[in-house]
Parts: sequence; C-alpha cells; structure tokens
Amino acid sequence: MASEAYEQLVRELREIGTFGTVSALLGWDEQVMLQPGGTEFRSDQSALMARLIHERFTSEDVGDRIAKLEAQALGGDAAVIVREARREYDRATKLPTSLVEAISKTTVLSQSAWIEARKKNDFAIFAPWLSRMLDLKRQEAACIGSKSGNPYDALLDAYEPGESAESLTAIFDKMKPPLVALIKRIAECGKQAPIEILERHYPAAAQQKLAREAAEMIGYDVNAGRLDVSVHPFCCGIAPGDTRITTRYDEAFFNDAFFGTLHETGHAMYEQGLPKMQHFGTALAEATSLGIHESQSRMWENLVGRGRAFWRFAMPKVRAAFPDALKDVSDDQWMFAINDVRPSFIRVEADEATYNLHILLRFELEQAMIKGDLNVADIPGAWDERFKAYFGLEVRDAANGCLQDVHWSAGLIGYFPTYALGNMYASQFFEQAQKDIPGLDEHLERGEFKPLLQWLRTNIHQHGRRYRGRELAQRVTGQPISPDALIRHLEAKAKHYYGV
Amino acid sequence: MASEAYEQLVRELREIGTFGTVSALLGWDEQVMLQPGGTEFRSDQSALMARLIHERFTSEDVGDRIAKLEAQALGGDAAVIVREARREYDRATKLPTSLVEAISKTTVLSQSAWIEARKKNDFAIFAPWLSRMLDLKRQEAACIGSKSGNPYDALLDAYEPGESAESLTAIFDKMKPPLVALIKRIAECGKQAPIEILERHYPAAAQQKLAREAAEMIGYDVNAGRLDVSVHPFCCGIAPGDTRITTRYDEAFFNDAFFGTLHETGHAMYEQGLPKMQHFGTALAEATSLGIHESQSRMWENLVGRGRAFWRFAMPKVRAAFPDALKDVSDDQWMFAINDVRPSFIRVEADEATYNLHILLRFELEQAMIKGDLNVADIPGAWDERFKAYFGLEVRDAANGCLQDVHWSAGLIGYFPTYALGNMYASQFFEQAQKDIPGLDEHLERGEFKPLLQWLRTNIHQHGRRYRGRELAQRVTGQPISPDALIRHLEAKAKHYYGV
Repeated sequence: MASEAYEQLVRELREIGTFGTVSALLGWDEQVMLQPGGTEFRSDQSALMARLIHERFTSEDVGDRIAKLEAQALGGDAAVIVREARREYDRATKLPTSLVEAISKTTVLSQSAWIEARKKNDFAIFAPWLSRMLDLKRQEAACIGSKSGNPYDALLDAYEPGESAESLTAIFDKMKPPLVALIKRIAECGKQAPIEILERHYPAAAQQKLAREAAEMIGYDVNAGRLDVSVHPFCCGIAPGDTRITTRYDEAFFNDAFFGTLHETGHAMYEQGLPKMQHFGTALAEATSLGIHESQSRMWENLVGRGRAFWRFAMPKVRAAFPDALKDVSDDQWMFAINDVRPSFIRVEADEATYNLHILLRFELEQAMIKGDLNVADIPGAWDERFKAYFGLEVRDAANGCLQDVHWSAGLIGYFPTYALGNMYASQFFEQAQKDIPGLDEHLERGEFKPLLQWLRTNIHQHGRRYRGRELAQRVTGQPISPDALIRHLEAKAKHYYGV
Repeated sequence: MASEAYEQLVRELREIGTFGTVSALLGWDEQVMLQPGGTEFRSDQSALMARLIHERFTSEDVGDRIAKLEAQALGGDAAVIVREARREYDRATKLPTSLVEAISKTTVLSQSAWIEARKKNDFAIFAPWLSRMLDLKRQEAACIGSKSGNPYDALLDAYEPGESAESLTAIFDKMKPPLVALIKRIAECGKQAPIEILERHYPAAAQQKLAREAAEMIGYDVNAGRLDVSVHPFCCGIAPGDTRITTRYDEAFFNDAFFGTLHETGHAMYEQGLPKMQHFGTALAEATSLGIHESQSRMWENLVGRGRAFWRFAMPKVRAAFPDALKDVSDDQWMFAINDVRPSFIRVEADEATYNLHILLRFELEQAMIKGDLNVADIPGAWDERFKAYFGLEVRDAANGCLQDVHWSAGLIGYFPTYALGNMYASQFFEQAQKDIPGLDEHLERGEFKPLLQWLRTNIHQHGRRYRGRELAQRVTGQPISPDALIRHLEAKAKHYYGV
C-alpha cells in the first residue's frame, strides 16, 4: 500500500504538472494564435506560471517528502517516480533564483541581438551576448555539478540524462570516419538527385490535405490533437489527451510540410503513447530524453517516410494530390529526389546523412566554448575551418555559418548532440523492429502502420522515464547505443541511389 | 502618494487578474481549438485555476488591506478600486466553498440533463435538475443577501450591479405596452419582409472575408485579437492586447455571420477600449455591467449595422461579395429583409423588436421561479400561456419553448434582463451620439466609424467600472435609463418599413 507521503507527493506533482500544462498551452498559443498586441502581456502570464511552478516544486514540503520516501526504499513505479523527483528537485533547488532570472532576462536580449546579427550578417553584434550567456551557463554548470567535473556534462544532463561529453564523444568518434568518407564518396561520384522536382508548384491546400492525411494515416490521434501552421514547426504535448503539432506550407518546396509533418507526428505519437492517464504529473508520464524523443520523429520522417516500402503505398496518393507537378516524374526519380544527399550550409535543411556532421561540428565547438578553450571572437574562424574540413565547402558568411541556429543565443548548450543521438537511436530501433515484426516492409507497403506503432508503444512509449535512453536501447535491441545501424542504413541508401 | 497597503492590494489584484487571463485563455481554447480528447483534462486545468484565484482573492491579507484602505477614505481612482474590491470580496467570501462546489457540480449535470431534455423534447428530464439548481441559487441568494430581501436581487446584482427586480420592473413595465402594441400592428398590417433573400446561397469563404473586413472597418483592432469559428459565437477579452471574437458561417443564411460579427465586434471594441494598460487587474479595467456590455454589441449590430446610413456604404461591398445571391435584389428589398419584424419562437433568432418580449417573458418567469411562486412542473404551461399572450403564437413543443435557452440549466438566474437593458442603453446612447456628433449619419454613409467609436471610448469605455450602468446613462445622456429611445427607434422603423 502506498504511504501517505507518497500519495501526497504524487498529488502535489500532479497539481504542479497541471500548472505545467497551462504553461504549455500559453506557449502553443503564443506561437500559433497570439497576435502582436498580446505578446507583451503573454510574457507576464508565462513568467507568473513559471514562478508558481518553481515555487511549488522547490518548497520544503516537496523536499521533505522526497527525503522521507527515499528512506523507505520503495520499489516498482514508486521508485522511479521518487528517483526522478529527486533528480529534478536537486536541479531546481541548486540554482539560485538570481541566476535563473539573469539567464531568463539575458536570453530575451541575447536572442534579439542574435536576430539582428543574423540579419546584418555581423557576428560582432552577437558576440558580447554570447560571452555573457556562456558565463551564466558556466555558473549554472558550477551550481549543478557533475561526476566528471566537466561543466558541459552538467548542461547536457538536462536534455540527455545520464550522458556525458565523454560518453557521447565515444559514440561520435565511431560515427565520424565512415560518415565523412560516405559523404565524400557521394560528392565525388558525379551523380546528382533530380531535386528540382521538389521545387515545382505544390498548391498549399493540397499540401495541407495531404499532411493531415499522412499524420492520421501513420497513427496520430487527431481526436486528441490538432495540426496548425506556425513559423517554426513544432510538437507540443500540452496535456493528457491534447498533443498538438504544427507545420508550414511552402508552395515551391514539397519537403517542408510533408516530411516536417511526418517528423512532428513522430514526436506527437510518442507523447500520445506515454501513460499520461495513469501517471500524469510524474516521470512515468514524461519522455525520457530529447534523444529518444528525436528518435521517434526521425524514424517516421526518415526510416519510414523516405523508405521504398512506404512510397509503394504513398506514391499514388501524392500523385493524385499534385498531378501537374508529378506528371513527367517517374517513381524512381521521385525516390532519388527525396533521398538526395549533398553537403549544404544550413542544418535544418540538411539531408539525413550530412545532418549528423552539422551536429558533430556544433558538439565539438560548444564543448570548447564552455570550457573556455575557444574564445567567442574566434568562433567564426573555427566554424568555417571545420566546415571546410567536414563538408568541403567554404562558408560564405556568418548567417550561413555560426549564426544560423537559435540555440546558443537561448542558452541551449548541450542540446545539439541529442539530434544526432536521435538519428542513431532511430536506426538502431528500426533495425530491431524489422527483426521483431515479421514482414514489416510488406505492412508498410500496404499502409499498415499499426504494427510498427504498436511496437514503439510497447518497447518505448509506455516506459516514460523509467529507463535512461542508453538503458532503453540496450533493453530493446540487446546492444549498446552505437552509430552502426545508422551507418549501415546510410551506406545501403548510398549504394542504392548513388552506386557508391 | 499611494499608501503601501494600496500598492500591495493593486499588486495582488494584478496577479490574481493575470491568473484570470490564463483562465480566459483556457476557456477560449476549449470552445475554439480543443479537440474532444482534451476536454476531460481541460476541466481539471480550469478548476485548478478557479480554485487558485478564489483562494488568493478571499485570503485574509486581501480582506485586511481592503479594510485598512476603507479606513483611509481615499478619493479618485483608488476609491473606485477599493469600493469594487470590497463588493467582489464580500460576494466571494459570503459563499461557503461547499455551496460553490455544489453549484459547480450541479451545473455540469444539469446542463447535460438539459441537452438531453431539449433533444428529446421532454421537460420532465430537466425538471428535477432545475429544482435542484433553483434550490442552490436560493441558498446563494440567502448567503449574499440584498437590501430588499428579495432573493432575485442578490442574483441579478452579479450581472447588473445596483439594479433590482423592482428597478427593472419599473423600466420593463414602461416598455411592455408600446412594444406589444407595435408588434401587433406589424403582424396585422399584412406586409411582410422578403426574408427569403437572406436564405439564398452565401459562400462561406466570401462571408468570412466580408466578416473580417466589417469587423476591422468599424474599428476592431485585429492586431490585438482574432476572428475564429465556434459553435456558439462569443467575444472573450482574454488579456490586455488580446480580445478575441468568434462567429459561424451558414451558407444558407446571411445574417448569422455578418450581424453576429458586428455584434461580437461591438463587445470586443468595449474590451479594447477599457483602460487595461493602466488599470489591469482592478475594476477600472473591467466592464461595468452585462447590460452596458450588451449595449455596445447591440449598437453596432442594430443601431449602426441595420441602419440606412451604414448600408449606403456597405451595400456595394456586400453586392460585390455575393453577386449571384443579390443580382435581382433592390437596395430597398435588402433593407426591408434585414429589418424584418415578426413573432417567432426562438430568442436568439428573434428580430430587434420582438427580442425584448422574449426577455420580458423570461424575466417575469424567473422571478416567480426563484421566489417559489411558480412550481417547476408548471413552467411549461406558464411559458406557453404567456407566449400566446405576448406573441400570439401557440408554442409547439418545449424545445421551442421553455427548454430553448442554456441559462437556467447553468444557474444563470438574473442574467436575461441584461439583454433587454442592453437594447435600451444602446438606443439611448445612440440618440445622444447623434446629438453630440455633427453629421453622424453622413460619417456612417462614408464608412467613417471613428467618430462614433471615439465617442464611445470617451463616454463609456474609458470609465471601466467607475460608474454603475444607470449612473453612466444619466451622465452620458442627461436622462435616467428608460425604454423611450428604444421605442422611438422601433416605431420609426415600423413606420418606414411597414407603414404602421
């Protein structure tokens, strides 16, 4: 029987979680619905909710209950809930309010400086703000601490619990040589995908209809969510029964809305598969890490959504939606176009293979930045040099180089590696799913996505935060996390499309 | 200089008000965006915010500060803020939590019984719930009390502060004889408006474009709001800089979207005109009563929006939007159609004149209900009998009779009279505006709506809750509130369109 302290803790976590869902709605509405006149007051609303949540969660009552429950050495679900509550409580209470507020204020100013710097293509405008932000994040890392003593680990741990610079470097070091070699072979083979096909006229209304159908088809419960438009597409698991996604429609580019929707739907189906009805408010109803979250989006976007089995099913639907754009396009041309691989400057537009090199570059630079081994003034030079080495391209300007991403301006140091980790997890999980589900390809060819989704529900979603990402991979695939499956996947595609 | 207690009170009211804006967003989202899967949890979110607001506002701290400030006998804005805080504090603290919760729970069940009863056209399904609700509302009235001792007054006061059954009866008694006589003359004159014009095909996309243009044209700041679709159109002043409206598009009926949007825009412009930037959280940033709020919507919908001056400007636009539907329609036919007056069963579909009789009937019945002079079982009979007397129509069934409105099932006793009061205020204000603004009709003919909006801003909006509705009417028009202007307005129209 659950103890009184346990019930009180869970009740309090649920109430704090409910405030969290309200915060999430404020955020969704801000990005999707709110008009300019309401933005100033929206920051008051969000700040008030954030303060309330922080005050409630860091109260002595919560701390006492966690300590009492730790002494009881509970098992099962309760053990997970208490373990994760401790982890979050410690992270939350270790940071002085003054530092939290300084980071919050600096983020607003730093982001606006970054926007200006990117627009004017002038790193010097952003440099002092990045210095200030790095200084604050070093203070944050010092407050939180880490086993290794490496400040980067304290920051990374917020996004990918249990990982460290060292553990990720070991994986990334294995990925780098075959990936660089593969991309080089493709670039030098002389064969190019007919990507101009994707830049024809794709009417927005037909794109919207198709995106909705695709999301619903692969398993998104539209009865418990919505698909809207926003400048930056995202998924927001607002509350139990309410997981919303967004996309954007570019009439001169097919990929944005279609693959973007598959991606966000992958995130959304993870949120919808978490046991929120039973465990809302606790860690058992939460995603376990950003890397695992990204593995779900990448699996549906790339492993399923760019695969030949999927397109045997989807091709007639897309042809029906865009008869003009596709009238002279063969299935093979289409498949090659959507599986194009080529070095390019912008991460968010990168293909499945080169994407990982974009991450590697950022992972290396941000570790040096936070340690103080790389001066802020030297970032553009370091970026461009490394970019030349990895991609064989000369960076034309900072806007297409080290100024392209919002993350550093927002203090998100340690966030980037989770994207590449997501790609690795996705490939590793998908290989396992193909072993576990007899005839998976045949299912996908027939538009039967339930077996795969059910496999994800059972093996990943239902566990919430019970297992760390790495532990989950080991349990599900019987192998430690590694880039091997990702490399095998990319090699097979390179062979098929480029003959290399 | 403001005292410390005053500053503390205002700070606390602002924070409570900020939670109120979050509640408002939850409500808007529920009606406009939320999918069925999210409704159950939404009630948890809303209940939690409501509880938080109630706890904060009824705290001893707030009570002590109000008492301290009353002792200081402040003047100016502070006096209004303290006076209204006292009024709301007393109302909130007089109700025991158990009663608030019982009403809240009964409302949910009672509304669902009402929906079923209306669908099955069976008053008996709803009757026990209405009895229970009336019993709870009598308890509420007993807790709150009133000068007169009439329980109805305690309930009415929530919606129309300062008014009483007696004060409203005096006005309604003056309205009733000329209104009944007018409607009878029209019904008997044999002339009928060509309303079939309004039931032609009006494509939804063109209606939407026109509704948006109309709202913006008359002065709605779309930069600080939105126009969306919902089942029941409404206006929601969510927060400073964020006032949203909704409408609905019926392709087989012109009036719903167009006049509905003018109506909600009238509400929205009141919200946008309240001094929320300076006084947010206090009564000075709040509408003074439902009657005054309704006067703003009715003025734009009926006094402006059904007037000949407005249509000299709007007719070409509407013809351009619906060339097919209007190709054989003359301006005079159109004007007659949108100014149709005829007895009908459903309040929300009623015209400008008969609408007031619908209210009168409900006002009379609900007083008797709450006093206990009318048994619940006898409501259908009483309704039908009175309906025959006022409208000359036999009520066919309860769904088109006493079961048509949601209000009683939701415990909204004392709410109905504010609609008719709004019509009276609207006419009285509009007569005064015509005196105060030289050439108002010529302005409207040219599509210049700013002079009227500015007049409303100056005379009504900027005052927030400084003056009670009745006091405001006296100040603005130099006359006590009365139905005279409304009757003059309706008589003039009857003469023009029906020749009676």
